[in-house]
Formats: sequence, structure tokens, C-alpha cells
Amino acid sequence: MTGKVAILMGSDSDLEIMKEACEALKEFGIDYDIQVLSAHRSPELVSEFVKNAKAKGYRVLIAGAGGAAHLAGICAAHTTLPVIGVPIASTPLNGFDALLATVQMPAGIPVATTAIGKAGARNAGILAAQILGIGDKSVEEKLIQFKKKLAESVRAKNENLKQSI
Amino acid sequence: MTGKVAILMGSDSDLEIMKEACEALKEFGIDYDIQVLSAHRSPELVSEFVKNAKAKGYRVLIAGAGGAAHLAGICAAHTTLPVIGVPIASTPLNGFDALLATVQMPAGIPVATTAIGKAGARNAGILAAQILGIGDKSVEEKLIQFKKKLAESVRAKNENLKQSI
Amino acid sequence: MTGKVAILMGSDSDLEIMKEACEALKEFGIDYDIQVLSAHRSPELVSEFVKNAKAKGYRVLIAGAGGAAHLAGICAAHTTLPVIGVPIASTPLNGFDALLATVQMPAGIPVATTAIGKAGARNAGILAAQILGIGDKSVEEKLIQFKKKLAESVRAKNENLKQSI
Amino acid sequence: MTGKVAILMGSDSDLEIMKEACEALKEFGIDYDIQVLSAHRSPELVSEFVKNAKAKGYRVLIAGAGGAAHLAGICAAHTTLPVIGVPIASTPLNGFDALLATVQMPAGIPVATTAIGKAGARNAGILAAQILGIGDKSVEEKLIQFKKKLAESVRAKNENLKQSI
Amino acid sequence: MTGKVAILMGSDSDLEIMKEACEALKEFGIDYDIQVLSAHRSPELVSEFVKNAKAKGYRVLIAGAGGAAHLAGICAAHTTLPVIGVPIASTPLNGFDALLATVQMPAGIPVATTAIGKAGARNAGILAAQILGIGDKSVEEKLIQFKKKLAESVRAKNENLKQSI
Amino acid sequence: MTGKVAILMGSDSDLEIMKEACEALKEFGIDYDIQVLSAHRSPELVSEFVKNAKAKGYRVLIAGAGGAAHLAGICAAHTTLPVIGVPIASTPLNGFDALLATVQMPAGIPVATTAIGKAGARNAGILAAQILGIGDKSVEEKLIQFKKKLAESVRAKNENLKQSI
Amino acid sequence: MTGKVAILMGSDSDLEIMKEACEALKEFGIDYDIQVLSAHRSPELVSEFVKNAKAKGYRVLIAGAGGAAHLAGICAAHTTLPVIGVPIASTPLNGFDALLATVQMPAGIPVATTAIGKAGARNAGILAAQILGIGDKSVEEKLIQFKKKLAESVRAKNENLKQSI
Amino acid sequence: MTGKVAILMGSDSDLEIMKEACEALKEFGIDYDIQVLSAHRSPELVSEFVKNAKAKGYRVLIAGAGGAAHLAGICAAHTTLPVIGVPIASTPLNGFDALLATVQMPAGIPVATTAIGKAGARNAGILAAQILGIGDKSVEEKLIQFKKKLAESVRAKNENLKQSI
Repeated sequence: MTGKVAILMGSDSDLEIMKEACEALKEFGIDYDIQVLSAHRSPELVSEFVKNAKAKGYRVLIAGAGGAAHLAGICAAHTTLPVIGVPIASTPLNGFDALLATVQMPAGIPVATTAIGKAGARNAGILAAQILGIGDKSVEEKLIQFKKKLAESVRAKNENLKQSI
Repeated sequence: MTGKVAILMGSDSDLEIMKEACEALKEFGIDYDIQVLSAHRSPELVSEFVKNAKAKGYRVLIAGAGGAAHLAGICAAHTTLPVIGVPIASTPLNGFDALLATVQMPAGIPVATTAIGKAGARNAGILAAQILGIGDKSVEEKLIQFKKKLAESVRAKNENLKQSI
Repeated sequence: MTGKVAILMGSDSDLEIMKEACEALKEFGIDYDIQVLSAHRSPELVSEFVKNAKAKGYRVLIAGAGGAAHLAGICAAHTTLPVIGVPIASTPLNGFDALLATVQMPAGIPVATTAIGKAGARNAGILAAQILGIGDKSVEEKLIQFKKKLAESVRAKNENLKQSI
Repeated sequence: MTGKVAILMGSDSDLEIMKEACEALKEFGIDYDIQVLSAHRSPELVSEFVKNAKAKGYRVLIAGAGGAAHLAGICAAHTTLPVIGVPIASTPLNGFDALLATVQMPAGIPVATTAIGKAGARNAGILAAQILGIGDKSVEEKLIQFKKKLAESVRAKNENLKQSI
Repeated sequence: MTGKVAILMGSDSDLEIMKEACEALKEFGIDYDIQVLSAHRSPELVSEFVKNAKAKGYRVLIAGAGGAAHLAGICAAHTTLPVIGVPIASTPLNGFDALLATVQMPAGIPVATTAIGKAGARNAGILAAQILGIGDKSVEEKLIQFKKKLAESVRAKNENLKQSI
Repeated sequence: MTGKVAILMGSDSDLEIMKEACEALKEFGIDYDIQVLSAHRSPELVSEFVKNAKAKGYRVLIAGAGGAAHLAGICAAHTTLPVIGVPIASTPLNGFDALLATVQMPAGIPVATTAIGKAGARNAGILAAQILGIGDKSVEEKLIQFKKKLAESVRAKNENLKQSI
Repeated sequence: MTGKVAILMGSDSDLEIMKEACEALKEFGIDYDIQVLSAHRSPELVSEFVKNAKAKGYRVLIAGAGGAAHLAGICAAHTTLPVIGVPIASTPLNGFDALLATVQMPAGIPVATTAIGKAGARNAGILAAQILGIGDKSVEEKLIQFKKKLAESVRAKNENLKQSI
Repeated sequence: MTGKVAILMGSDSDLEIMKEACEALKEFGIDYDIQVLSAHRSPELVSEFVKNAKAKGYRVLIAGAGGAAHLAGICAAHTTLPVIGVPIASTPLNGFDALLATVQMPAGIPVATTAIGKAGARNAGILAAQILGIGDKSVEEKLIQFKKKLAESVRAKNENLKQSI
């Protein structure tokens, strides 16, 4: 059995971004939960959830946050599970603040950071699948098919391009 | 009675910077403690200390950290005391990461951020004195004298300058 | 008695942002005044107001400005009261200029800087409440209730999220 | 069995940074290889190595590079294994270029990015351990011990600090 | 004979930008092909196309991409033909990521980088014409006429300006 | 008569930079005074000096400062004389903060900003000469000679270069 | 007599910004001309115009440009008149490129740089007035009135604010 | 016949960087000249040289400059030959200013920009070789050999690495 993925986000306004992670996990047939858990507004809920995450069957955590994005780092502080951080562009600094606040973690507590915004959220889901695919043949096979489709979609786009020009 | 100030830093390598805050507090006759408390390496110690800080007589917290500097924000999540954040330049990004990770807090959980590095650490101590000075005549008087000396030092530097040119 | 808070802004176009600070102060039952006072267009008005602020019963100053945001720093130059600076995104640089011009104060004259824009303005109000709450039980109690509601709102958002998915 | 980790670096001058990843993997008892493989100077070697990596028993790839750091992204293009990217500060832009060139991957091809420089290289090793620890009790146990030691080291530093002040 | 120019783009959503390069090449009477070829989604297609480009009569490659823009660099890795890179603003970082990921190439593998976005795409086409014009009198003559028209258009704009004011 | 130039600097540690402005003014035979005047430490001295500057015969002000560099802007607030601002690199942000805090002035109060550091200080002196040269034939003539020497020095450097290669 | 001001802009699309400079000059009763002169598209026109500018009665040049904004610097290369540079936000980098390309001039050739965009254009006009006001009592008097009105407008805005709240 | 390459630099202090371009051209057997030609200090020399460059047998221009790096852009304004720009880190902004001032050229006047500093200077030489190699079999052959050696050097470094670990 693969284990579940927990998707956490700092605010419900991040849902539009983070549902990209949900979609990706669905494509790979991976179970997930999604919830709002703010490192700043609900620190107790975060530490409680994350400390129990492994026991509840979660294998990877995905945390998306904007601004002084501390959520992924705080999750990583409380668990030995891999934590994926998604910087979200929710301030006038366009996600640049969230990127640095997520990725520049000190030695000892990694956060696997993806790109700012929707591409990063989708990639967080795919990265979780890659991590779980190491020990799950069914997920691995889906990843191999997914990669083939990426290249095929490029070929298809070129066909369309040739006809449209 | 004024109450104490707690100075927290993410790593003992930050001591060279954060002792500027200690010096400032000494000049204003304010009690303080300083300790290493990492939001990432020792999250339990942080939440335990901060939640009990008010009961132990602390009135202001000062937190210095570099990189993805989450310490001040996490302190602010656990207390209603004012939290002052000092960004420290400890990565190749020169404290720019620490500044954004400290100052760009979401609505609801302020961190009073000062400048990057030694100037910011010293100012954190002075800001704590200004906050405590609202309710403490002795500190307030020292702040007024301090401000006079700042202007006098400018005058003195000009005298030196005239003679050196 | 708690004392009043003065909210200053560099331009009346900053009102949309700075009224977030007003709202926050109202929630904590703190008296405040708000006015336009430009460090550049009306420097005399600024120094006159700030030098008399303590005598008039103000205990904390909040200053919001954009671009080469000098207002908070100039206030801090004229008083020993704590000064909170709110960087405002009013130029093509998205508040990045205002952030650096507000936070990078030299040793001796701190400005307690909050986030760029509305979140920062709201947090300036809350930070002023935290500062005044040190010596005011009624404000302190409101802050404790406020913090509880923050965590509760996260719980409520999760309930909504579960039902909406 | 856990499987090996491959550490790739764009240039042999990156070894000083990337050996931090080696050290971390050793601490967790994880097999690894390290080699120079440039996305730009030896693209054939990269694609050949990466496409065969899974068959050779590698389960996680770590790629460190500076400047227009394409190595991690190109690895990710050729495999469904998780790829961890370490930005290295090897140009006048202090690793800022390497960070953006590593983390801002398009949807479909994630790179799990860590911090710039040595902290990021060490964290890449730890993250690989966390990923492999999902399916390996011995690694998982070492991670739990490691996390305890992190908190203990903070306590120990505080003891030293108290005695040195 | 002049030889063809190949225009590659990382995604079909880049077409709106990259058709500026097509337009420029048409103005100089230079043959070109345009296609979608992603360094990340279709790495095999890229290396196959680029390695055969010279044999197929291509003399200059133009590659446009956004985010962690690796396309131009990967093309440059596979050919000795000159490669022109166009950074595209397709993420919240406004093309700043694409610029650094394109221009900061390591010694040995140059990418001739132009400006972000449409101006850069148009200039990529003109630069290709300048390169081919070294050995092609007809293109050279068109470039000389083009340059004259640039100056004339400035004169014409001034005439319009005088009449409109 | 040409009138004097006042050179102000936020700190005596800025003297090494600002003496470049002195040197330039000497080369053009222009009278100047230099003094330390901090917008933050000695705001009264600044406003007093600047308000009387015109009456004392000053015609141009040059102000150099680092960090949240408010000095030039505050001078500009108090006078109708032209104010030249020199950003100084005195914090970990390399003068980037001082540049934005000096140049991004709001409409109504210009600061004529030059480059960061020594080049900017020297250019501030030259710019003051250009401004005064409008009404002073002797300064104008020196500027014309200076410009000729710039071109000649390029020629001389080329001679040296040819012989050294 | 005061002398004229020449306003140059790199493109006619900059007119919307640069007419702010025109408006300011009109307010101070200063003669001006405005024209499109591109450092890149019409380099001969620029050098011809600028070299003859003094003889034609111009006393100050204002040059606005976006992107790799070379216009002000090239003007400064050809004249001993003061040159004011206005960075314009005309690329995805929001004028940040134009600011650095305008302000970071090497020692010997100053450009008096103002803020990005409309505020900078208006301030360029005011700065030209300040420069010409040194030798023109009528302009100086208008500047003194203008400064008074700035402070009065702040007072008026406060009256409005009090009534609107 | 291949034609010569002209290497221009804004200052003789840039020689340490730009000699990397010389070295690269020597390796490919390409004739070159190098000289100091400042867009700002000697604008006439620049336009005179560049306008005659084609007639004198130059086929590619390489221009290196720091700060507000206008040299490459101004060269491009005066010729239809391809111009390669090398940004040099000669100010406190680490070449970031030079990069933007070189690459962000407006539509119509391309500059083929390479990386900041020595890597960029070396790549400018290689890019010139690639451009000239289109019409010169001997250069083309050297480029093919050079590319092979790049891959071989990676292999050799790996041998060394294996033995040193």
C-alpha cells in the first residue's frame, strides 16, 4: 500500500492554486486529504496534525503558503516525512517572498520546494507520486505513461501548429 | 515594574549579531535573557517557551534568524506579546531572504521587523525599550537622554571632521 | 489608561490601505487619529506633530508610505515613542522600494516594520494593540480572544472546505 | 533494500558544496555515487546515465549546479525518479540565478529544490533519506534519532551560551 | 545560399511571443521553421532535432522559453551553431527567472540572449539576420535599409508629435 | 559669482565615499563645505541647515547616505535648491536599499540621484558643476576641458593597451 | 533669461509619461521642446541634437527611456549641460531595468536620475526648474510658492479626511 | 576569409575579464583587435570606429561594460554587424545592473548578451566563432573538436574524482 498524501495550505484563498496538486494526485491514483492549517493562525493544529501524520498513514506532506511562507518549514520541523513546499504569489511581491521563505531552510530540515503558483502545485502532486512510486509499481507505471504523454503532447502540439500557420 | 525581554536566536552563530540587542537593553537598564531556540530544530522548545513567556514576566520578545527566517513568525503565532524580528544575513542572499521571511507576515500575526544585521539587532533592543518606556518613566527618561546624545554625537563628529580636513 | 494611537500616511491615496489599521484598532477598543502628513510635502507639520505627540497622549505612531517611504523614519527621528512603519505598494516596484526605505533604518532609530500593503496595515494596528496591551488588561484580554478566534476561523474554514469538496 | 542515490554536479568545482550531501547520506547509511555530469558540456552522458539510473538501482537523484543551473531539470526530464536540485552560488549573482533556474520548472517535470549552497546540499542528502525512509525502517529510525539530536543540540548550545555569557 | 533558421519554443502558449521572430525573419527574406520542443517534456526530440539541424540546412537556432528556461541552453549543448535565447515572461516572476536561466550559461556553451518578451523575440529574428547577413549580400542590404528606416521612423514620429501637440 | 555647494553625509563613515565629491568640486574650482548631518539622528540640525542654506550662499546640496537613505529626500523637502542624492552601500544589501530610498521620491520633491558609491559621489560633484556652469563661464569652460580629457584618456589607455599586449 | 529645456524620449509611446515633465515646466513658466530621439534607432540624431543643444539655448536636458535605457547616458556623453534621466516602466521588469540603466553611470558622466514613471517625469520638470531657478528670480519665486502649496494641499487633504471619516 | 572580431571594453579595468574573449578567439584561430572605447567618455570614437568596422573587415563586435553598460547597445545602434554584449560586475550591484542595461534592448536593435563576467567573456569569443563558423569550414571544424573536448574533460574529471574520493 502506497500511503496517503496530506495537502495543507495556509489560507482557504490558496485553494485555487493547491487544487492543482489534488488533480495531479488523482491522476496517479493516490489518496489525499486537503485542509487549511496556518503556521501562524493555528500553530497548535499544525504541530498536532503533523506529529500524528505518519501514524495516520500519510507518507508525504505538501504545504502551500504565500508571503512569509512558514508552513512547509514548520511541517518539516515536526516530522521525518518528506515535506514538499509550494510558494504562492499572494502579496505584491509576486511570490518571490514565499519562494525564499520556503526554500532557504537551514541545514537539517529540508523542504522540497517547487515553482511558484499553479505549476508548482501541480508539480508537488507529481513529485509526491514520484516519491511514492519508488515503492509502488502501480504508481511507477502511471508515471511512465504520464511521461510518454508529455512527449506525445509536444508532438501533437506541433501538428496543430503546422496546420494553424 | 518593566518586565523582561527575551532574546531568541535561531543558531548560536547568530550571537555576534544578537549581542547588539543585549548591549542596547543594558544601556536602558532593561532585564533580558538570551537563548538559542530554533523554529526548525527545536519547535517544541519554541512553543513551550513562548507560551509561558508572559507568565514568566517577559513583556517583549526579540527573535533573530537567517535564511528562511521563521523564528519571529512562529513566536508571534504563540503569544499576544509584541515580537520583534531581526533578519540576519547568513546565506549567499545577504539577508534578503531573512528580511522577506520575517516581514511579510499575514494579516493577524504581526512581527515588528528591523533592519538586516547588527543595526537591526541594536534597533530591536531600542525598540523594546521604547515599548517598555510607555509604562516606565525610568526607561522613558533614558530614551530621551539617548536621543539627545545621538544629536550631540553628530555635532561632535562634525567638529572632528572640520579638524581632520 | 491606554493612550491613543496616531496613524499617519504620506498621501490620501494611501487611505484605502491604512484604514485596515483603523479597523484593527477599533476591534481592540483603542482610540486613534488618522491624518495625511507627508515627510516631503509637509516636513514642518510632521516634526511639529510628532514632537508633541507624547504630550497629546499618543503612545504609538503608525506611519504608512510608498516609494522612497521616509515618513516612518522621520517620525522615529523626532520621538522616543515606538513607531510602526507600513510599506505601501504605490510605484511600479510593487512596494519593494517602500519596504527597504522603511525597514533598513540605521542603528539608533528603529522603525517596527510590517508587511507591504493591507496585511501590513492591519498588522500595524494589531501590533499597536500588543504594545499597549502590555499595560492594559482590557486590551490584553481582547488580544487573547482575538488569537483564539484566529485558530477557530481555521477550524471553520476546514469544515467549509470539507463540505465544498 | 533501500536503493542508491546518485549525486551529480555540473562541475568539479562544485565538489566542496556537494560533499555535504555525501556526508548526510553516510550518516543515514545510504549508498551513493557522486560524479560530474554537465547538462551543457556532456548532455549525452547525462541522458544516458539518467535513463539507466532506475535499472542500475538508483532511487533518488541529487543534482547540484550554478548559474543557468539546468542539470536538475534535465535529469528530471529523463526519469520518473524524484530529482532533488541544489542551487550553487558560483557566479556574481550569488546563487540567485541558480535558484530560479532550478526551482521554476514547468508543470509536469518537478525538481525538489533545496537552499542555495552547503545547507541545501546537506538538506538534499537528508531529503533523499526521508524519501527512502518511507520504505526502509532502518533509515526511518535513523531519521527519528537525527531529529532528536537536532533538538538536543539546541539544548546543549543553550547550556554553553549560559556559561559563556 | 543563406540557410534556414529554426525557431523552437518550450510551449505552444509561447507562440504569441515567438511569432515576432517569424515576422522579423520574413522581413529579411530568411527561411525559417517554427516548432514546439520542450527541454523538459520532450528532451529526446530536442536532442534529435538539434543534432541534425546543421545537416538539414539550419544555420541559426532561436529558442524561446519561460520559467526555468532551459531550452536555449540545451540546444547550445547539442550543436556548434549559434543559439539565440529569448526569455519569456510566463510565471509570476515576470520573466526575470527566464532571463537568468537563459543568459547565465557556463563558460564553453554560449547562448546569445535577447530581451524578455516580444522585443526580445523580434530582436532574435533580427540578430539571426545579422549573423546570416555576414555571408549573404541580399540580407546585408536589407539590414542596411532596415536601419535607415528605423531612423526615418523616429523622424516621422517627431513630425507627428509636433502636429499633435 | 557661482555660489557654494554643501555636501552632507548621514554618517562620518561615509566620508571615504563622499570625499570623491569634494575632489570633483575642487577640480572645477567650486567652493564647498562638507558635514555630517543625519536625517534620523539630528533631524533638527538638518532642517535648520537646509532652510538657511540658500541665504548662506549655497546653490546646490549633495547628500550621501546608506540603508534607508532619507537624507537627500529630507533635504529636498526643506529647500527649493536642487538636491543631489548619492546612495551608499553600507548594509548587506549593497546599496540597493539606499538607491531605492533615494531615487523613488514622490511627485513634487525631486532628488537628482547618481550611482551607488564612489562613482556616484564623484558624479554628484560633476553634476553640481554642470548645474552651476549654466551661469558661470569659468566653470563651464572647465567642464569643456574636462570632457576633452575624458576622451583623451581613452585614447591614452588604448596606446598603453596596444603596447602592453 | 532662463534658457530652454529639451525633453527627449526614446519612443513616442513614452509621451504619456513624459508629458508630466511638460506640465511641470509650464507651471514654472519655462520654455521647452519635446521630441522622440532614440539612442538606438537614431543615434546620429541624438548626438547632433545634443552637441548643438547649448548653442540653441537649451540649458537642461531631460531624457526618458525604458528597458536598457541608454538615452540619458548618451546625452550626457555629448554635452556639459546637466542631463536628467527618467526611467520608464515599459518592459515586464517594471522599470527596474530602466532605473539601473539610467542611474548607474560611470564616474565622469553624471545623469541626474529621478523616480520611475510619472512621478519621475514630473520631478524631472521640477528639478529643471530648481536648476534654472538658481539664476532666475522669477522661477525661484514660483518654486517657493509651489512648495508652500504642497504643504497647504496636505492641510487641505486633512480637512477633507476629517469630514469624510 | 573569416573576417576579424573587434573586442571593445568600456574601461581598461575590464581587461582582466575581456581577455577571456581574446583567449577563446585565439583557440579558434580568429583574428581580433581589442581596445578601450567608452560609450560615455569617448562617444565620438565609438561611433567612428563602429561605423567603419565593416569596411575594415570586422564581422562581429564584442563589447564588455559594467554599471549602466551602454557600450554594446550603442555599438548595435551604429552597425548591422552582430554585436555581442558582455555584462561586467564592476559596481556594488554585482553585474546585475550591467546585465539589464545590456540585454533589455528595444525591438529593432539586438545585442547578443552572454553571462556576467569571465564566463560571459569567454562565451562571447566562442559565440563569435560559432557565428563566423557558419561560413568558415576551418573554424567550424575547430568548434566540433572543442565540443568533443568539453565532453571528454567531463569524463576526465570523473576519473580524477573517483580516484580522489
